[in-house]
Amino acid sequence: MDRLEKGKNLLNQVDAAAADTVMTSLKDIAPDISQYILEFAFGDIYARPGLTLQQRELVTITALLVKGDTSNQLTVHLNGCLNVGLTPKEIIETCIHCIPYIGFPRVLNAITVAQQVFTSRHITV
Amino acid sequence: MDRLEKGKNLLNQVDAAAADTVMTSLKDIAPDISQYILEFAFGDIYARPGLTLQQRELVTITALLVKGDTSNQLTVHLNGCLNVGLTPKEIIETCIHCIPYIGFPRVLNAITVAQQVFTSRHITV
Amino acid sequence: MDRLEKGKNLLNQVDAAAADTVMTSLKDIAPDISQYILEFAFGDIYARPGLTLQQRELVTITALLVKGDTSNQLTVHLNGCLNVGLTPKEIIETCIHCIPYIGFPRVLNAITVAQQVFTSRHITV
Amino acid sequence: MDRLEKGKNLLNQVDAAAADTVMTSLKDIAPDISQYILEFAFGDIYARPGLTLQQRELVTITALLVKGDTSNQLTVHLNGCLNVGLTPKEIIETCIHCIPYIGFPRVLNAITVAQQVFTSRHITV
Amino acid sequence: MDRLEKGKNLLNQVDAAAADTVMTSLKDIAPDISQYILEFAFGDIYARPGLTLQQRELVTITALLVKGDTSNQLTVHLNGCLNVGLTPKEIIETCIHCIPYIGFPRVLNAITVAQQVFTSRHITV
Amino acid sequence: MDRLEKGKNLLNQVDAAAADTVMTSLKDIAPDISQYILEFAFGDIYARPGLTLQQRELVTITALLVKGDTSNQLTVHLNGCLNVGLTPKEIIETCIHCIPYIGFPRVLNAITVAQQVFTSRHITV
Repeated sequence: MDRLEKGKNLLNQVDAAAADTVMTSLKDIAPDISQYILEFAFGDIYARPGLTLQQRELVTITALLVKGDTSNQLTVHLNGCLNVGLTPKEIIETCIHCIPYIGFPRVLNAITVAQQVFTSRHITV
Repeated sequence: MDRLEKGKNLLNQVDAAAADTVMTSLKDIAPDISQYILEFAFGDIYARPGLTLQQRELVTITALLVKGDTSNQLTVHLNGCLNVGLTPKEIIETCIHCIPYIGFPRVLNAITVAQQVFTSRHITV
Repeated sequence: MDRLEKGKNLLNQVDAAAADTVMTSLKDIAPDISQYILEFAFGDIYARPGLTLQQRELVTITALLVKGDTSNQLTVHLNGCLNVGLTPKEIIETCIHCIPYIGFPRVLNAITVAQQVFTSRHITV
Repeated sequence: MDRLEKGKNLLNQVDAAAADTVMTSLKDIAPDISQYILEFAFGDIYARPGLTLQQRELVTITALLVKGDTSNQLTVHLNGCLNVGLTPKEIIETCIHCIPYIGFPRVLNAITVAQQVFTSRHITV
Repeated sequence: MDRLEKGKNLLNQVDAAAADTVMTSLKDIAPDISQYILEFAFGDIYARPGLTLQQRELVTITALLVKGDTSNQLTVHLNGCLNVGLTPKEIIETCIHCIPYIGFPRVLNAITVAQQVFTSRHITV
Repeated sequence: MDRLEKGKNLLNQVDAAAADTVMTSLKDIAPDISQYILEFAFGDIYARPGLTLQQRELVTITALLVKGDTSNQLTVHLNGCLNVGLTPKEIIETCIHCIPYIGFPRVLNAITVAQQVFTSRHITV
């Protein structure tokens, strides 16, 4: 299986619906970015052994939460967390754990996105 | 057990040596910060159920790596990762996983700190 | 008075209306964050002597402005600034003072939020 | 020609329409910021020899893209890029070039703004 | 008094020694940056009415602390704080106040710089 | 020519000496990161048409300067700028151009690194 196939495969496990939306939106303006996301981010990196998909998604939402100005990407990967089997409780707990390292504002922003994702999936915490 | 005791307990599990160093350095200039680290960061947050200590340390090094200008804190928590049972391989893999979200520079900085921590503990990857 | 009471007391002085909104929005998804905001951010930190509430709010809006991606939190604390007696002129002046340290974009973003807050309170500068 | 005149002149070359909007929005709340943008950012800095206007706009969109939480300013300067003669292809290529240094999320955010700017100018890439 | 004179005047009040060091280091490689620091940062911005020099330095160290990777500039302005009459206690308190907004790591970094500045001035807190 | 070969080729044009140092330092701890830098950052991205190598290095140092905590990477790419034919004057001018977008501190940090790079190459500006 080549990098592109491996990447598509993994992105579909993480968030198939979001993948479609992002790829469609990039199709006309910058299709090469889609290709790099699939080949590099998912085909090279997510495909590596050494961490479970659940660990990878935990690390991903932490990275996005801390970076800030990433609500679109958080939406994708909060769904991704749930899709690979993390519980809503583990997601919220990860956000809370970041408070001492990054402060309340970034965490509150992430919680707002989590709330929208949970609502869209009819999840109550 | 009160918040302070709970916090001391947990910080000792994560990195007892570093705890001593940080607390000593703060003793004269800002001892209240030590207290907040123990009571709030460790006594309130680390003490929560919902994530294992290994998950918490994985999230912590991700947060520090992404934030940047945190090499002192990364030294503490890369040691913390090893102390709570994460493998050097999982640590390196976590750094690599962040490349697509944050780019190479922050990851290379974290790898440099990891190298120093591993060397100080006679670990070869 | 315990930490929670002290915190509620202080948050009410800073921005009672915003407090309600934030706490309500966190009630179902992450009520513990509300508790930490009250107990730690306000009960421990704001309650300390050593700086006036006006100085604290000046420092707070600077921190939020510089951090970026904090428009919700800036709305709360620009109102907070006015509630503890800072003048609109001092607020604008604080934003302007940050230009050499952080550049124009973050300052322009903060001014946009300030404009909305001032309008909602029928303030003309 | 004084700094203010030089600045107005240059901002008009970069993005006359946006200049009007920004200046109007600042007129009542913080007119001095408009003056500093004109005198310092454009009259002092853009007016310097040593880089072409095209190089300056390339550097500007990179700075804004990397900083994050700058979609308003990116809108101004993506238009500015086109106004000083950079091609849509060069703009997209600049965004793509930043992926290894800053990761995908900031680049995807910038591409979203570029898409809006290109659409508003009936540009197809 | 022109902008340059006004700026020199104000920078001397804030930190005359540091001013010399910075200006000397820029003299051969980028003397124009010295000029902009004097004319714009100090001659235009610090010279404005509306905030006291003490308020300006409080805002400045907050901005630098939050931004990160600014230990050189923090050294200048922690000295500046003391030179314009802020007490060591107010400086430490400002750092502590930022914990809920930015987390512990940036605050600990600033405290380390404060410790060096206080030691160099034989100040004990 | 495959991605790895293309990447090695390009990195050698940008900064052969630095490449060696980085790759050697990663060899034992995380050799896969070297591979990704060569294959993805240089083999995929730098190898693209659409921008000249000079434009790419201009964009790179801007990205690094704005991000902060990147002095090691700035050392590599300030050398890279010179290696692909940018002049010291263009480098300094790029730093100066960023002042209005990011403020003085990040620019002063970059100038400090530039000074070291220029000195090591016996360049006087």
